[in-house]
Amino acid sequence: SFALHSEKSVPDFNSFAARTNTCGELRSAHVGQDVTLCGWVQYQRQNLFLVLRDFQGLTQLIIPQDEAHSHVKSILCSVPMESVLRVTGTVCFRPPEQKNPRIPTGDIEVKVKTAEILNSSKKLPFEIKEFTKKSETLRMQYRYLDLRSSQMQYNLRLRSQMVMRMREYLCNLHGFVDVETPTLFKRTPGGAKEFLVPSREPGKFYSLPQSPQQFKQLLMIGGLDRYFQVARCYRDEGSKPDRQPEFTQIDIEMSFVDKSGIQRLIEGLLQYSWPEEKSPITIPFPSMSYAEALAAYGTDKPDTRFGMKIIDVSDLFRSVDIGLIQNVLRKPQGTVKAICVPQGMRCLQNKNLESLKETAKSRFNQEVLHLVLGPDGSLKSPMSKFLNREQQSELIRALNIQVDDVVLLAAGEHKKACSVLGNLRLESATLLEATGLVLRDPTAFHFLWVVDFPLFLPKEEKPAELESAHHPFTAPHPSDTSLLYSEPTKVRSQHYDLVLNGSEIGGGSIRIHNAQQQRFVLEKVLKEDPELLSHLLEALACGAPPHGGIALGLDRLICLIVGAPSIRDVIAFPKSFKGYDLMGSAPDQIGPEELEPYHIRVAWPVAEVAAKKN
Amino acid sequence: SFALHSEKSVPDFNSFAARTNTCGELRSAHVGQDVTLCGWVQYQRQNLFLVLRDFQGLTQLIIPQDEAHSHVKSILCSVPMESVLRVTGTVCFRPPEQKNPRIPTGDIEVKVKTAEILNSSKKLPFEIKEFTKKSETLRMQYRYLDLRSSQMQYNLRLRSQMVMRMREYLCNLHGFVDVETPTLFKRTPGGAKEFLVPSREPGKFYSLPQSPQQFKQLLMIGGLDRYFQVARCYRDEGSKPDRQPEFTQIDIEMSFVDKSGIQRLIEGLLQYSWPEEKSPITIPFPSMSYAEALAAYGTDKPDTRFGMKIIDVSDLFRSVDIGLIQNVLRKPQGTVKAICVPQGMRCLQNKNLESLKETAKSRFNQEVLHLVLGPDGSLKSPMSKFLNREQQSELIRALNIQVDDVVLLAAGEHKKACSVLGNLRLESATLLEATGLVLRDPTAFHFLWVVDFPLFLPKEEKPAELESAHHPFTAPHPSDTSLLYSEPTKVRSQHYDLVLNGSEIGGGSIRIHNAQQQRFVLEKVLKEDPELLSHLLEALACGAPPHGGIALGLDRLICLIVGAPSIRDVIAFPKSFKGYDLMGSAPDQIGPEELEPYHIRVAWPVAEVAAKKN
Repeated sequence: SFALHSEKSVPDFNSFAARTNTCGELRSAHVGQDVTLCGWVQYQRQNLFLVLRDFQGLTQLIIPQDEAHSHVKSILCSVPMESVLRVTGTVCFRPPEQKNPRIPTGDIEVKVKTAEILNSSKKLPFEIKEFTKKSETLRMQYRYLDLRSSQMQYNLRLRSQMVMRMREYLCNLHGFVDVETPTLFKRTPGGAKEFLVPSREPGKFYSLPQSPQQFKQLLMIGGLDRYFQVARCYRDEGSKPDRQPEFTQIDIEMSFVDKSGIQRLIEGLLQYSWPEEKSPITIPFPSMSYAEALAAYGTDKPDTRFGMKIIDVSDLFRSVDIGLIQNVLRKPQGTVKAICVPQGMRCLQNKNLESLKETAKSRFNQEVLHLVLGPDGSLKSPMSKFLNREQQSELIRALNIQVDDVVLLAAGEHKKACSVLGNLRLESATLLEATGLVLRDPTAFHFLWVVDFPLFLPKEEKPAELESAHHPFTAPHPSDTSLLYSEPTKVRSQHYDLVLNGSEIGGGSIRIHNAQQQRFVLEKVLKEDPELLSHLLEALACGAPPHGGIALGLDRLICLIVGAPSIRDVIAFPKSFKGYDLMGSAPDQIGPEELEPYHIRVAWPVAEVAAKKN
Repeated sequence: SFALHSEKSVPDFNSFAARTNTCGELRSAHVGQDVTLCGWVQYQRQNLFLVLRDFQGLTQLIIPQDEAHSHVKSILCSVPMESVLRVTGTVCFRPPEQKNPRIPTGDIEVKVKTAEILNSSKKLPFEIKEFTKKSETLRMQYRYLDLRSSQMQYNLRLRSQMVMRMREYLCNLHGFVDVETPTLFKRTPGGAKEFLVPSREPGKFYSLPQSPQQFKQLLMIGGLDRYFQVARCYRDEGSKPDRQPEFTQIDIEMSFVDKSGIQRLIEGLLQYSWPEEKSPITIPFPSMSYAEALAAYGTDKPDTRFGMKIIDVSDLFRSVDIGLIQNVLRKPQGTVKAICVPQGMRCLQNKNLESLKETAKSRFNQEVLHLVLGPDGSLKSPMSKFLNREQQSELIRALNIQVDDVVLLAAGEHKKACSVLGNLRLESATLLEATGLVLRDPTAFHFLWVVDFPLFLPKEEKPAELESAHHPFTAPHPSDTSLLYSEPTKVRSQHYDLVLNGSEIGGGSIRIHNAQQQRFVLEKVLKEDPELLSHLLEALACGAPPHGGIALGLDRLICLIVGAPSIRDVIAFPKSFKGYDLMGSAPDQIGPEELEPYHIRVAWPVAEVAAKKN
C-alpha cells in the first residue's frame, strides 16, 4: 500500500462507494468487465440509449430490449432526466460507426443488466449541459445545480488540488506549520470594513478580521518560525463588483527572513503547485520598483504580457513651441508622456480614438493628443506642424513608431500623465483585441514583483496627514530607516506586491520587529492611539525575531488560472455583489427576541419606520 | 529535487532563512562545520556558556574568551535573557565530562565567532522553561510567550502534521475535494446557539453556522461526489468549561455510500494520519449499539479502556424479599443494576464510598447500596441478610466478585439506574487511580463506534413533542423506515458516533435524500416550518444522490492524542471559558457611530443604565 502514497498516483474515486467505476473511467481495456455505475440521467434516446453522468464524465448505456429485462427497460425508458440511477452491466465495444472520439469513454458502452432509481428528479429550472445559457441570478439561486456543470466541477477540483500542492510544498518540503487563528477577535485600529459580532456582554462586540496579520506576527514572536494558513478573511465593503464579503488567502509568515527569501519561497510555491495542464511558469519572476511600474505602465500592477509602454518625451518637447506643453513642463513634476498603439490606424476607428480621449477627459480631466505615422514617413497630427523634421524623427525613434501606428500623448504632472496613459494602454489593448489581435494571451502567465513602494502616503482627504501605504506593521527599507524620523514621506517600504497578468494576487512585507520603531510609526507618524495595539507593542518588546510574510489572494489566483470571468466561478457558494446568498436568502430577518441575548436592537432608518406606520 | 517530494523526507527548516541550521539539529557528524544559528537566549552561565533556543531545541554556545573576540564576548555576556541572537561559529565536540545525553545536541557545542543581537528583550512576566508554573490567566494574557514552550510547540506542530496526513489520505488517496463553504449564512431552524452578524440592511443578519451541514449536502446534490473541509465552526453557548466559541471540525461527506463505507473511510483516515510516536491503533474499530452502551456503561460514550461494566441483576433480585427493590421491579423498566469495583475494599476509604453514594443521591436522586466480599467468601452488607447462600453465590458469580471487591448496586428505572452506575464507574476509576492503579492507560487509544441511536427523542420540557436526537437530516434505519409514519419514537437512526477513550470525537449519519421523507420529518414529526429549509427541500427534489458523512472534532481529538488537560492547549489563540481573548481583550466596546452602518443600537440592560445614571 505504500506505493499509493507516491504523489503521482491517481486517487481511488471508487473506494467505500456503491460503484465499481466512475462514469468517466471506462475504456477499451475494460471491455468484458461487469461494472456498477452511479450517476445522473443526462439524456435518453429512442428508448435505446441512456447517457449517465457523474463528476468525471459520461457513459453510454445500452437499454436492454429482450423480454427478460423488460423491467429494466421500463425503468430506463421512463426515468426523468437528472434522476439518480445505479446500474450494473457489461462493458462492450461500441460499433465502429458509433465510436465518439470527442469523449474519453467514446470507445465503449455498457449493456445494462440491472437498474435502480436511487432518486427521481423533478423537472429542473435549467439543463445541465455545456452551453446552456442561464442568468447569473438563476445560477446563484440554484447553485447546487450549477455545480453539476463540468466547468464548475473543474474549477473547484483544480482549486482543491492546487491548494493541496501548496500545502505539500509549505508543510512537507519547507517545515511550515499550519496554524488556525481566531476569526472572532477585536476591532483593528482603522478597521472600518470589519464585520461585527455582538457578544452576550452588553455593548461588547467581536470583529471578524480582514486578515490574520496580528496573529501571524504574534506566532513569530511565539517562536513558531514558519506559519501558513489557508485563511478565511472578511471584509465588509458594501456592494462591490467581483468582491466577496468572505474570501480566502494563502497566509504565510517566516522568521529570520528577508524580502528575497519570501520572494524565492513564493516562486517555488507557485511553480510546485502550478497545474500541469497550464503553460508552465518560469522563476525567478521579474521585479520592478513601484516608481518604474508607474513610469512605464501607469499602474502598480502592470500587465506585462504586452508592450505599449509609456515613454517620457519631456526632453524632446522642451524645444517644441507649443504653449500648452511649455506651461506643463515649467511646473514641478511636469512631463510629456506617450504610448504607441501598434497598427492603431488600421485597428482603431475614429470613434475609438475619440472614446479614448473622452475617457482621459472625463475620468482624469486630462487632454490627450494623438499622432499617426503615415506611409510617407511623416507624422500626421494638428500638432505636427510644431515639430521640425529632426524633432519628428526623434519622436519616431524614441517610441519606435511604425507606419500606421497611433501615438497617444499626454502633457501633465508625472503621476497623473502616467495613470492616464496606463489606462488608455489597457483600453487600447481591448480595442485592438476586438479586431482579432492577441495582445494579452489568456494562456500566458506573466508574474511580476513590484517593490520599493512608499511607506506612507498623504491621506486623500487631509493631505497634511500621513497614512500607511499598506499597513502600519510594514518595515522601512533598510537604506531609508534614518529618513523615518526626518522625512517620512521619502521612506520606501519593504513591501512587495505580486502581480499576475495585471492583477494584484498577493502582497506582503518584512515587518517592523522593534517595539520602539513600531511605537514611533503608530504614535508620531500615523497619529494613532497605540493603546489599541498595546498587546502587539508589548509582544515586540519580548524578544520578537525579525520576520516577514505575504498573503496570496486565492480566489483571484484560481480565477486567473482557470480563466473564469468572475471569482464567483471559483467559489462553491458565493454571495451576489450585494452580499446576498440567493439560494438560502441570507442575510435574513431576525426577531427582537433573538437579538435580546446580545443586547442589541434594530435601529430602523426613519424612512422604514414611516413606511411601516402607513 | 524530485526526491524531496517523497513523503518520508524531512522538511528543510533552513530554506530561505538567515541560518544554516536550527538549534536542535547539530550532532557529532557536524563537528568541524561552520554554522549560523538564530534563536533566543535561554540562559548564560559564568560568562562561558550561552544556551540558544529555537522551536527545535537547544544548542550550547561557547563564549570566546580571547582578546580578538572581546566584542563578541561583551555582547554574549550582557545580552538579556530571551533576546534574539544570530551567531556564527564552529561545531566542536563537548569535552567528554560535559556531554549531555538528555538533549539531542548534547554531544556538541558551537565555538562562537560572531554574534549579533537581532532584538533585545525586556524582562518577561515568566520564564520559558519546561516546568515553570504559571497561571492560566497569565498564559492566556501572554500567549505569544506561552507558545515558546516546547509543549505548545509540540502540540501545534503535531496538529499541523496530523491534519496534513488527513488531507493526503482524503485528497490524494481517495479523491476527496477540499471545498470551502460560507461562514456568513442564514439562521438554521432552531439554531439558537448561532452568533449573529449584522448586515448593512436594516433588520437583516447573517449567522455564523454551527457546521457546514447544509452546504455539504448541497455539494452532494451538486455532484461533487466526495467533499471534505477542515471547517471553522461557531457555537455561542455562553460560558462553558473547555468549549470554544469557534472550533474546528474535519468535515466529510460522500455520495453513494452507506454507514459501513463511512466507518471504514474514517478508520483508514485515522490509521493513516496517526502520529508515529503514539501507540498504534488497530482497525476496524469495535462497534456497539446505543442500547448496549447504555446498558453496559450507562453512557453513549463509554470509556472502554477498563471493565467494571454494569450488570443487570434484576432476575436474581426478583426472589429477594426487600420491599424497596420489589417496588422498583414491579414498575415498567424497573431494574436492579450493579458494578463491581475491583479491590474497592483496599483502595476506597469509607469517605470515598460515602461520596459516591452522595453523588448518586444529589445528582440523580438515586439510592445506591454497597456490598463487599469478605475474605471468608461471604458478602458483607446491611442487605446481605436478605440474600440466602444460593442468591449470594449467584450474585458473586454474575459480577465475578473477588475478595475485597466492592459492589455498588442501584434499583430503579433502566436508563436512570444505568446512568447513575455509569457515572459512579468513572468516579470509582478516578478514586482507584488516585491510589496508583492504572485503569485508564493514558497512552492507550480505544476507539468505539456507537450506532443505532433513536432518531427522535421526547423534548425535555414538553415530552409529548419530539425533537431530533441529532439533526433533522439524519436518515432512519432501513429496517425501521415504515415505523416513521406510525411509531416515530421506535425508529432507530443511521447516525454513528465515534468515541475515543470515553470522549465523543465525531458523529455523522446517512442523510435523508428523499424530499418527501425530509418534508414529512420536518413538518409532521418535528412540527417545524419547512419554509426555512425550502432551498434544501427543493434541492432534494432535483436528483439528490444518496449520501452520508461525518464530522470529527479536531480540537478534542488532538487534545486526547497529546494528552493535554484542555483543548485550549491545542489551539494557538484560544478564548477563556467566558469567551474572552485575554491577550487582545476581545470582545471589545464599540461606539454607536460604528454601529450605525449596521442599523443596530445597544440595548443596555436596566441595571447598567441605572448604574450609569448614578
